[in-house]
Amino acid sequence: MSGNTIGKLFTVTSFGESHGLALGCIVDGCPPGLALSAEDLQRDLDRRKPGQSRFTTQRKEADAVKILSGVFEGKTTGTPIGLMIENTDQKSKDYSNIKDIFRPAHADYTYQQKYGMRDYRGGGRSSARETAMRVAAGAIAKKYLEQQFGVQVRAYLSQLGPIKAEQFDWDQVEQNAFFCPDVSKVSEMENYMAALNKEGNSIGARISVVASKVPVGLGEPVFDRLDADIAHALMSINAVKGVEIGAGFESVSQKGTEHRDEMTPEGFLSNNAGGVLGGISSGQDIVAHIALKPTSSLRLPGRSIDVDGNAVEVVTTGRHDPCVGIRAVPIAEAMLAIVLMDHLLRHRAQNFDVRCETPKI
Amino acid sequence: MSGNTIGKLFTVTSFGESHGLALGCIVDGCPPGLALSAEDLQRDLDRRKPGQSRFTTQRKEADAVKILSGVFEGKTTGTPIGLMIENTDQKSKDYSNIKDIFRPAHADYTYQQKYGMRDYRGGGRSSARETAMRVAAGAIAKKYLEQQFGVQVRAYLSQLGPIKAEQFDWDQVEQNAFFCPDVSKVSEMENYMAALNKEGNSIGARISVVASKVPVGLGEPVFDRLDADIAHALMSINAVKGVEIGAGFESVSQKGTEHRDEMTPEGFLSNNAGGVLGGISSGQDIVAHIALKPTSSLRLPGRSIDVDGNAVEVVTTGRHDPCVGIRAVPIAEAMLAIVLMDHLLRHRAQNFDVRCETPKI
Amino acid sequence: MSGNTIGKLFTVTSFGESHGLALGCIVDGCPPGLALSAEDLQRDLDRRKPGQSRFTTQRKEADAVKILSGVFEGKTTGTPIGLMIENTDQKSKDYSNIKDIFRPAHADYTYQQKYGMRDYRGGGRSSARETAMRVAAGAIAKKYLEQQFGVQVRAYLSQLGPIKAEQFDWDQVEQNAFFCPDVSKVSEMENYMAALNKEGNSIGARISVVASKVPVGLGEPVFDRLDADIAHALMSINAVKGVEIGAGFESVSQKGTEHRDEMTPEGFLSNNAGGVLGGISSGQDIVAHIALKPTSSLRLPGRSIDVDGNAVEVVTTGRHDPCVGIRAVPIAEAMLAIVLMDHLLRHRAQNFDVRCETPKI
Amino acid sequence: MSGNTIGKLFTVTSFGESHGLALGCIVDGCPPGLALSAEDLQRDLDRRKPGQSRFTTQRKEADAVKILSGVFEGKTTGTPIGLMIENTDQKSKDYSNIKDIFRPAHADYTYQQKYGMRDYRGGGRSSARETAMRVAAGAIAKKYLEQQFGVQVRAYLSQLGPIKAEQFDWDQVEQNAFFCPDVSKVSEMENYMAALNKEGNSIGARISVVASKVPVGLGEPVFDRLDADIAHALMSINAVKGVEIGAGFESVSQKGTEHRDEMTPEGFLSNNAGGVLGGISSGQDIVAHIALKPTSSLRLPGRSIDVDGNAVEVVTTGRHDPCVGIRAVPIAEAMLAIVLMDHLLRHRAQNFDVRCETPKI
Repeated sequence: MSGNTIGKLFTVTSFGESHGLALGCIVDGCPPGLALSAEDLQRDLDRRKPGQSRFTTQRKEADAVKILSGVFEGKTTGTPIGLMIENTDQKSKDYSNIKDIFRPAHADYTYQQKYGMRDYRGGGRSSARETAMRVAAGAIAKKYLEQQFGVQVRAYLSQLGPIKAEQFDWDQVEQNAFFCPDVSKVSEMENYMAALNKEGNSIGARISVVASKVPVGLGEPVFDRLDADIAHALMSINAVKGVEIGAGFESVSQKGTEHRDEMTPEGFLSNNAGGVLGGISSGQDIVAHIALKPTSSLRLPGRSIDVDGNAVEVVTTGRHDPCVGIRAVPIAEAMLAIVLMDHLLRHRAQNFDVRCETPKI
Repeated sequence: MSGNTIGKLFTVTSFGESHGLALGCIVDGCPPGLALSAEDLQRDLDRRKPGQSRFTTQRKEADAVKILSGVFEGKTTGTPIGLMIENTDQKSKDYSNIKDIFRPAHADYTYQQKYGMRDYRGGGRSSARETAMRVAAGAIAKKYLEQQFGVQVRAYLSQLGPIKAEQFDWDQVEQNAFFCPDVSKVSEMENYMAALNKEGNSIGARISVVASKVPVGLGEPVFDRLDADIAHALMSINAVKGVEIGAGFESVSQKGTEHRDEMTPEGFLSNNAGGVLGGISSGQDIVAHIALKPTSSLRLPGRSIDVDGNAVEVVTTGRHDPCVGIRAVPIAEAMLAIVLMDHLLRHRAQNFDVRCETPKI
Repeated sequence: MSGNTIGKLFTVTSFGESHGLALGCIVDGCPPGLALSAEDLQRDLDRRKPGQSRFTTQRKEADAVKILSGVFEGKTTGTPIGLMIENTDQKSKDYSNIKDIFRPAHADYTYQQKYGMRDYRGGGRSSARETAMRVAAGAIAKKYLEQQFGVQVRAYLSQLGPIKAEQFDWDQVEQNAFFCPDVSKVSEMENYMAALNKEGNSIGARISVVASKVPVGLGEPVFDRLDADIAHALMSINAVKGVEIGAGFESVSQKGTEHRDEMTPEGFLSNNAGGVLGGISSGQDIVAHIALKPTSSLRLPGRSIDVDGNAVEVVTTGRHDPCVGIRAVPIAEAMLAIVLMDHLLRHRAQNFDVRCETPKI
Repeated sequence: MSGNTIGKLFTVTSFGESHGLALGCIVDGCPPGLALSAEDLQRDLDRRKPGQSRFTTQRKEADAVKILSGVFEGKTTGTPIGLMIENTDQKSKDYSNIKDIFRPAHADYTYQQKYGMRDYRGGGRSSARETAMRVAAGAIAKKYLEQQFGVQVRAYLSQLGPIKAEQFDWDQVEQNAFFCPDVSKVSEMENYMAALNKEGNSIGARISVVASKVPVGLGEPVFDRLDADIAHALMSINAVKGVEIGAGFESVSQKGTEHRDEMTPEGFLSNNAGGVLGGISSGQDIVAHIALKPTSSLRLPGRSIDVDGNAVEVVTTGRHDPCVGIRAVPIAEAMLAIVLMDHLLRHRAQNFDVRCETPKI
């Protein structure tokens, strides 16, 4: 199979470039009978949409999604759901200047090497604009999982550059421009971003995504372990450089007595596993963390080469996110929801009932 | 597709439990004409084999692999390669005592929940014993990649619990029981492990895996990015809780000017990307790191429940690795090689030539 | 993977119902650099389009296809190609009367049984309208195969009900409304269809599809044999009930001496194999035949049941093809081209050169 | 994915050549809890086994299958089932003479062209010996389908060369060497085969396969229609040149009023559809027919070429089936069972209940 489809039973196949006519995807494998309208998808699209705060790119994109098929009289029919977002605010002229050069840390160089050509306008297919369709498709998975089982998939920004969220309150996450659960850090983040903008630089971020009320037993060892598919899906998001499940890299310095999540008749006593044991969900919260690199599009000049191999200096104008991590929150939720949905279907295929019990016998 | 196959064109499908008759796998998609014998696979199997030092389990397993098909007159024929390792030293009696209880941090609980039953002998399918076939299959990929393109896939232990390798020398890696590239830390590690064994505890580890001379252009955006498939393959290894590409989680606190790998006509000036840009290999070394949790099988008692939900105390006797990370070195190499091989075939399918040049135009 | 994608490397994923907003598909895996415009696809779409003669449905559908992505400055970029056809002439009122009944030999009954609901308008997803996207996607494969290797994929009507084409002239195929290679049978077919229309009945047809100048060596034994994938693709076309490769069912009464295609230094002496030996293309013409059932939508009343299981009499009004086989000609070409394209990519993946020689050493 | 795996959720991946050490396969996706022993598989293997009558090859193969994994305490565990048959009676010397020539109608030529080399011993991977593993894997699917739903998958020989079975009695099928349901034709077939053997020639056959009590709703339109997957699976069997569903090629000359299977509250009045409507099972019997070409290995000399392109005369000695069709009966059953099993799992994934009712509302 080619590279633009994810999932085995609940599949999302996407198309579209940053400055093409439209972005779209086909969601195949959604069970029939789910009440679904464009509004259900728009909410998350709007959370991802640029221009929501002065800390994200000021591009104005309507990002209005259309459902082209698979829904009849307000309900899914079990046939493929075609989704489309027409591109509006394109401003192609912004990009003509990078036609023949490779922006450092962008995909310009590798796309040119692989394909021998590239749609250089705004990064073409490699633009994070592509993630809009992930969010739209993920919203379908999120709605199904929540309606059927009460599964909730939510993400937040756990670290912005040097600033870590320390207190935690889900209610705060949607109340600030950073999706930060620690209200006490918001003004610090605002000041940090303001200074960063002035400097013309960018910064990385850490996003955490959590799924609660996950059915027990999801995951297909040994290669399609739930955590392996989660790692695949999250690492496929633009700018992601690392994925952790549960304790993640902290496990390296943990002793066995510290890491192992002991069990009692009342349930688990800790969750270093992040909700996955042996590649199968345990019924605890699924917890994953991702590292996003800083935006590579900077006003500050950088050394690079042009298509003929000559040294050039690159300065990226145009409108860009100083921290792509912020807008990755709904994207991370979408990818985790897509993986859970796919594994829910795979689990059912073996005729297992789906149990969302407190994780005990 | 079910969960025991990895890869799209170069596929590995495996079977076998810790204490069954045999482990095996089918390697499909290996091009014809590769000189191949069991010895080629045995070398890496022996690197993974237990009982190699007093720091790994003292189980004695011959782990002698047989090639059952796909090789004729010493060369691969392009037909599927059947591999098998017969299980010898099984000692099933060691395990009867855990028949009805769930060992903390093991897959006992989730397998029982998913399948309603389980082969409890040594963890059955969830045992790390399964990784022997990964190593055997990976050795085929490693040999093909090296012979055709000079690609080298090598791993080492970069951290054992609190002890980090600081100096680096590839030549040292195979010279000590820890696959540690820093000879100055070996005796410290030996003492640490000795104390750990005495204590009856276990510890996590960090393994780094590097592929050099990788062709430019491997990877199929957007979902089958090379780094996404690497994350999938590495996270599918038992006990792995985190995967990083290049700078990984350090990217969170990096600024754009710091992270972006600038280019000159002579090549890249740094490798925070870990050899992957936009999901496609850049020709730089592919660098990945994984976190392995500490072994869950401990002599120190832990709280758990039995199949009826009653509280029990678990003490794991039998022979176990105090640090599973050590033996993960050849496994990580195998998984990275399998992913690179698969993407090499996928790349070729589009009729691109395979270039292993210094990464410049 | 769900059921709306075909192909492993050259994949076509489609969506859309007969009376939805639009039909569309995503063609993934097309190599970069192919000159492509909507006109390239429109030609075959027009050959399939209804209302081309009085022997096909009089529905007027513009069937104007739009390329939404994957093409930049007139050439494919190697990224997914999004295609869309907006539905125009829908006349939904025509169908409200069949909302609660199952038309005999239609998919109404099975869709209702499987999904518990259905989009009954014009058959919804089960409508042959879906095949428009196959034709559009197939046109991309046809163009690539022809441009790169001179492969030609052409089909014709070899039998209409009782009337068999006996003489053969490729030049005639596009000269008559039946795609019939035997000009001497055309008026007979016209009279037959006129009588059939008067009677209110429909008739089956046999379509033959031929690919010439096919490279030697395409096909992946043992399960993904070229002929097996061709059978899959052709049987997936609406109304197809049989597929033959080469001699097909004539092989049943052939003796070995009669069937075996002997070889000489000048090439094969016959083509009972239909261009496939052991599941791999031999370089001879690929020859396949398909049987299409008569249209099930008839003015002549038929017995059926309604959703409550009560006996009903069904009379299908509306505009329908008395012989769906006629319009299947470009569809059969498209499906064969898609399979050949997919196998061409799979063949290349193993680093085999692509040879289009006369089939000898 | 490479070519040696069939199925999406119930997958069979096979390896092995005619004269290698062993044949084997991995059956992945079998639900846990199915009572399974080697004997369950051996019964069908023995039906396929050569040397059962004087009308099949006199090679003696034990074809004793071993279950290497996936079964614990007599029941499947949900983990992959490894199966192996060791090759015994190999007689490699029989084949050295064909090392450098291409037997007409065999895969020798195309394998050499594709892979640049081949295991010429007995056809290597292209030998029908490979089908032994299909039969073993299919027996697992057959047992599951029968135990869970009472589905029966049975095949018979409907035509041997010019001789058609006219009367029909399932009870006769296993009572004669031809799997012929018409006892009145058996002696005619015996005489025909005796004459054929004397002549040194071979003959084709038609096999019919029927699945009864099939659940309603199996099949994933539009590309993974049940009939399309059946066509794929049956056409992938060695020597098969045609596949029909239901009326098959008779549909070509049928009128709509004749072909459409009318329904009444008591059920369908006919089964021209062969149990599949719109690619989804209707609950009627699934009926498929396949055409098998005559064996290509003949004592009668045939013209061919050698690897250097020189004209040669080929005479095939050794032991061969004068009619490969006869032994294809259990193979056809196995392939249909595998497809049904796969689609049963895919159907369940969408959370539909599995109904085996008489096909009415």
